[in-house]
Amino acid sequence: MQQDLRSVEVDAESVIRSITPALDPTRHKGQAGKIAVIGGCREYTGAPYFAAISALKIGADLSHVFCTKDAAPVIKSYSPELIVHPVLEESYSVREEDKKTISRKVLAEVDKWMERFDCLVIGPGLGRDPFLLDCVSEIMRHARQTNVPIVIDGDGLFLVTNNIDLVSGYGLAVLTPNVNEYKRLVEKVLSSEVNDVDATQQVLSLAKKIGGVTILKKEKSDLISDGDTVKSVSIYGSPRRCGGQGDILSGSVAVFLSWARQHIIAADPNSNLSCKNPAVLGCVAGSAMMRKAASLAFCHKKRSTVTGDIIECLGESLEDICPAT
Amino acid sequence: MQQDLRSVEVDAESVIRSITPALDPTRHKGQAGKIAVIGGCREYTGAPYFAAISALKIGADLSHVFCTKDAAPVIKSYSPELIVHPVLEESYSVREEDKKTISRKVLAEVDKWMERFDCLVIGPGLGRDPFLLDCVSEIMRHARQTNVPIVIDGDGLFLVTNNIDLVSGYGLAVLTPNVNEYKRLVEKVLSSEVNDVDATQQVLSLAKKIGGVTILKKEKSDLISDGDTVKSVSIYGSPRRCGGQGDILSGSVAVFLSWARQHIIAADPNSNLSCKNPAVLGCVAGSAMMRKAASLAFCHKKRSTVTGDIIECLGESLEDICPAT
Repeated sequence: MQQDLRSVEVDAESVIRSITPALDPTRHKGQAGKIAVIGGCREYTGAPYFAAISALKIGADLSHVFCTKDAAPVIKSYSPELIVHPVLEESYSVREEDKKTISRKVLAEVDKWMERFDCLVIGPGLGRDPFLLDCVSEIMRHARQTNVPIVIDGDGLFLVTNNIDLVSGYGLAVLTPNVNEYKRLVEKVLSSEVNDVDATQQVLSLAKKIGGVTILKKEKSDLISDGDTVKSVSIYGSPRRCGGQGDILSGSVAVFLSWARQHIIAADPNSNLSCKNPAVLGCVAGSAMMRKAASLAFCHKKRSTVTGDIIECLGESLEDICPAT
Repeated sequence: MQQDLRSVEVDAESVIRSITPALDPTRHKGQAGKIAVIGGCREYTGAPYFAAISALKIGADLSHVFCTKDAAPVIKSYSPELIVHPVLEESYSVREEDKKTISRKVLAEVDKWMERFDCLVIGPGLGRDPFLLDCVSEIMRHARQTNVPIVIDGDGLFLVTNNIDLVSGYGLAVLTPNVNEYKRLVEKVLSSEVNDVDATQQVLSLAKKIGGVTILKKEKSDLISDGDTVKSVSIYGSPRRCGGQGDILSGSVAVFLSWARQHIIAADPNSNLSCKNPAVLGCVAGSAMMRKAASLAFCHKKRSTVTGDIIECLGESLEDICPAT
């Protein structure tokens, strides 16, 4: 059965209003969300920063980054708002005979914090070092055992596409592929080519085949599916394609997913949400928020818009949709 | 035949409007340009940052820097928008017997990326370490083999002036000498003194002698020649001569050159461009853009204008000439 995009377009602003928690003076630090980004290596430091700072700007209370020792001072220097843990290691700094010990140590460092996190973002600026990716696979397994949701982007998708069992069947996992990442995922999982004519059906099949993970396919209109339903978000964003926008999205989805989960657990009887999957709701909200902020930033900065400009517009965009008072 | 400057003054704003790509929502990350700056050493970190961030502010999608290990954390810390690769090495950190191995490694690291770049900027903050310059010579040769355009400034010009074969006959090379760098180039290549009376003829001869590379001679009026034609850009800029403005120019030329090349390859039948050399068009556009932004920044900041202030005016300047709509 073919669906056209209009039939699945969702009222994303209403989703945002439903799941965004009230700002109640009696609440404590952490209750609005504790997010951790796993990423940042010798080569990449901007991406994990963008994801982590976006989580704070959306309204999370605490935002951590777990990165390599080289990346940590740089990421720390971008902002004192983040808690940056220099715990990951790349092959070049590890001797073969020490790998097991170091791997265990890395995992122990992350595990100390795991249960406190409402969501992990895995992949921004992670790089593709095999030893580092092995450690991150273990982190994913632990997150899953602890029922901590995970949003996977960038090099995290490279890892998962080649090891689909890491997420297969985990309903609290979100994959946020761009055009190229989606292509590889479809080839690997469905053994077929990307079908643009019947895109909604294909994303549905893909999500179903990976056991109900949620996929946010980033394109002109974002398509979101958990194998059960398909939603699209087509709010106008920006024609600028500067690198780093995907990192804002992954950080935003993490926060909204956490909020949606709290909202659903609280089982608000007044909730008018037709969908009860927090991963899908988080994607819908994150996608809409990102697009609105990008549109606002583009109004101000036009062609010279960079990712930092969009992050500065997250607050105003959320306030437009869902005023704090 | 002597030409006076008025006869070669070009309508630079019309060139900018012709080559700047439309902002089309169906385009993907990277299509508006992927630029790499080769530069940044223990001593210099500002110059490569200025060049790379200017590329983004003009509208490129991705901007990389390849620099030494010492320079990388500092350049990264200036902005999370850049992708900074700590791959170059200076003599002081390399033993004689390791030079071949390390040189090969450096080249391999840059080669991994080479084909993805639309233009390289070689020289901002490069320094003059002999081992490092040897590696950069090899990078230039590889860029040339791959038909990647190169804009050469600063210490890159020092290298090229002493090894003119590196660029000789490469039509996708741009040299952007200031007064002193131009003097050395003229002495070396034409074995003569700078002739200010017949400047247009001399820059034409120089470009022709180097086999059709494009020269952007920075002065009160910028003169641009590829050995075939001479253009001048005299839009009023700023009387401030703070260091770093040449880096803005090189980054801007790189983006406009890439856009001009795309424009010419697409062979737009409506194009009214009289010149079909993307290197010349890139220089004309970059020169005008730099001058307009410098003028705007000087209006705001007067004597206290610094290079960062000019960079902040690039977006508005481009918008004035070529509105994004």
